[in-house]
Amino acid sequence: MKTKYREFKISEITPEMEGKEVKIAGWVHSVRRVGKIAFLVLRDYTGLIQVTFRVPKDASDEEKERMKELVKKVTQIPLESVVAVKGVVRRDPRAPRGVEIAGKEIEILNEAKSPLPLDVSGKVDAHIDTRLSNRPIDLRRPESQAVLRLVSIATKAIRSYLYTLDFTEVFTPKIIASGTEGGAQMVPVFYFGKNAFLAQSPQLYKELLTSSLEYVFEIAPAWRHEESDTPYHLAEFISVDIEMAFADYEDVMKVLENVVKNVRDAFVREGSKWLEVLNYQPPEVNLPIPRISYKEAWEILKAEGIEIEPGEDFGTPELRKLSEVLEKEGKTSGGFYFIVEWPADARPFYTKRGRKEEIGGKEIYLSESFDLNWKHLEISSGSTRIHKRAELEEEMKARGLNPQSFEWYLKWFDYGMPPHAGWGMGLQRLMVPLTGIPNVRLAASFPRDMKRLVP
Amino acid sequence: MKTKYREFKISEITPEMEGKEVKIAGWVHSVRRVGKIAFLVLRDYTGLIQVTFRVPKDASDEEKERMKELVKKVTQIPLESVVAVKGVVRRDPRAPRGVEIAGKEIEILNEAKSPLPLDVSGKVDAHIDTRLSNRPIDLRRPESQAVLRLVSIATKAIRSYLYTLDFTEVFTPKIIASGTEGGAQMVPVFYFGKNAFLAQSPQLYKELLTSSLEYVFEIAPAWRHEESDTPYHLAEFISVDIEMAFADYEDVMKVLENVVKNVRDAFVREGSKWLEVLNYQPPEVNLPIPRISYKEAWEILKAEGIEIEPGEDFGTPELRKLSEVLEKEGKTSGGFYFIVEWPADARPFYTKRGRKEEIGGKEIYLSESFDLNWKHLEISSGSTRIHKRAELEEEMKARGLNPQSFEWYLKWFDYGMPPHAGWGMGLQRLMVPLTGIPNVRLAASFPRDMKRLVP
Repeated sequence: MKTKYREFKISEITPEMEGKEVKIAGWVHSVRRVGKIAFLVLRDYTGLIQVTFRVPKDASDEEKERMKELVKKVTQIPLESVVAVKGVVRRDPRAPRGVEIAGKEIEILNEAKSPLPLDVSGKVDAHIDTRLSNRPIDLRRPESQAVLRLVSIATKAIRSYLYTLDFTEVFTPKIIASGTEGGAQMVPVFYFGKNAFLAQSPQLYKELLTSSLEYVFEIAPAWRHEESDTPYHLAEFISVDIEMAFADYEDVMKVLENVVKNVRDAFVREGSKWLEVLNYQPPEVNLPIPRISYKEAWEILKAEGIEIEPGEDFGTPELRKLSEVLEKEGKTSGGFYFIVEWPADARPFYTKRGRKEEIGGKEIYLSESFDLNWKHLEISSGSTRIHKRAELEEEMKARGLNPQSFEWYLKWFDYGMPPHAGWGMGLQRLMVPLTGIPNVRLAASFPRDMKRLVP
Repeated sequence: MKTKYREFKISEITPEMEGKEVKIAGWVHSVRRVGKIAFLVLRDYTGLIQVTFRVPKDASDEEKERMKELVKKVTQIPLESVVAVKGVVRRDPRAPRGVEIAGKEIEILNEAKSPLPLDVSGKVDAHIDTRLSNRPIDLRRPESQAVLRLVSIATKAIRSYLYTLDFTEVFTPKIIASGTEGGAQMVPVFYFGKNAFLAQSPQLYKELLTSSLEYVFEIAPAWRHEESDTPYHLAEFISVDIEMAFADYEDVMKVLENVVKNVRDAFVREGSKWLEVLNYQPPEVNLPIPRISYKEAWEILKAEGIEIEPGEDFGTPELRKLSEVLEKEGKTSGGFYFIVEWPADARPFYTKRGRKEEIGGKEIYLSESFDLNWKHLEISSGSTRIHKRAELEEEMKARGLNPQSFEWYLKWFDYGMPPHAGWGMGLQRLMVPLTGIPNVRLAASFPRDMKRLVP
């Protein structure tokens, strides 16, 4: 689209446009002078182009003087200044895309100070803290930008796939009266003089919506006061959530693995430019992604000399070991695997209880639940949900939650809640396997964690 | 997709499937008995179907007895209970879609209590407060559900259009250190022991992103402690935001009017079923949507006997009168019109100041800004933004804001902020003209306002 300051984006300039006068705009990526010629490399988000300013031989003295001044002016523009350029397209077989611009006029739209607080050429490596503190210009670095471009491709691919299954996009409330799982991780809000919280997840609301809209999804922020400063936790993250009426955990696992595959395939199809910038090839995701039960996982760990208390959750060291074994045995799909049928007591109250089983000499109630992991990292978690009020109340009590404070949610189970199932997935977490980033913060525009409230 | 509890959605059952045994599931919409036959109307989100249970003439005594019991059982199921049905598809020319199901088995998945707190058939009109307090089952009413289905179609259409212009979807932080415009409408958050706020808009962050990603959009919640209890205000609303580098207010107005047109056209194309339920036809949106300047608007009002202090904002009564006049003169597009070039002092600090003009005998600084209205309702607001630090600081001071508390934002204007422009639009507000709802709350799944924190 042609806008006030430019007629073309840089990538739209092609050799076929030779001789055409164009107006482009962007950042001064580099500038140098060789004799009487100024070479300016202009950058916009689509690419780079060289603009050459030279004093013409066959022109009036006046024009020669003007261009001489211009060459001088161009040479003095600080890097990262914003400029608009008028010039003529010229074929140049030596140029990266076969074209350059013969510059005629330049307007400095915003002059940059120097030095910059962060090198944006990407040549100088910077610590992640420095990068995040200087995020607005860090995002001019191709590899920083690439990740956010891929995040955008991811949300597009997720939605496209869910639309094919007739899901409805919903927006559930983020200011809520009581927490999904309670606990110290809730972020308090002062709401019209009342104490409230920020939603840790759309869990209870998306469940309620299955009793009318049936298939719902949401991609929205969620909040946890994460006290652990790890590369995989954000205090504000983007949660991808689905919930389906008349489905169980096996049904929604199928949706989930297709979502992951669709994102991966969209990256290869639409995001190859950005993957190249990152020099990363996401793993191929063949379906079905292998499932192993909690019991099998527990036994593999035991055989490896790691004995977990039966019924307890696995930590990162356990998942590292487990995924190593699974990868060796070819029981992952590009590093992805499901652990299914978790011990019921280790899962949230709304998780459907399953059969009893003996694990490590203990009788354990299982549940219709799963985690999707990639290597040691939990990407998504889901389950069949309880749809009977009495069962819900029992599970709440067993976890020290007071059913009365959930009455606003429980009462609808009296009026036709369907069986349902769903999952939640951390969008930034999914970017770890699919973009190769070492830290989920790099998949957030301006990450929020324990220490970071600005920019 | 076939799931645990059903093989087909109701709308997928066609006369061509005659004789096929199917498993379907849904809610008991109505049930009656005529002689020895039970007629159950089953509902899922795709439609209704009649399931007939009758005692067969040519069957074993055992089977006859079983079906007799079944007929009795079916007749006693409370309305809105959730059931799964097995039966055989039968052509029935008298049935609405030409098919019914000869029921063979029924499983009650969740029995509903009666009476229901709200009639869901839609036959009994309920007050909006009652509806919102019973939102999980209110959304089973076709006209309630229709609005949320159309909201989902709207977000899809908005994104589709913006993708064609190469916009990147972003997620900006919702917990922020200082407000965009300050003021009493900020919702306080207690963030890791620090005082912070919920974002009223992604304004400052989306601006910063234009210096790298250039074209960005976001569809996300935003919060305002709205003390005014009107049909058009929510404390938590969905804000559709775009921001474009190298563009001015005229460029982004073009994007905005195309967004509105695309949503309207998508409703007619993909949402006709839901529009029929609402018995509403959205107005045709022909482009360009007419623009009138603040000065012209001011003069029209004066001619109508309404004299506003020159430079002041218009209120709802003024917009009602103004839009009446414009509609009479054919100067709206289906009720939509832009008011452009607002007095600079009446706009937020980041708005680009324009030329001086005489209005009502006063010299007034205008700005490169606009509102998109529909009749008396403001749908969207936008402008060219200031991209020079010194100008921003001046405008802040003029509004009693302290530039130091915006240093985290201002400092990036030293390092190559491009000229940029954008707008924000209330998604639920847009639904007023396009779905005919009288209250924006009806376009939220679980609205949040002064009084409403649950459900």
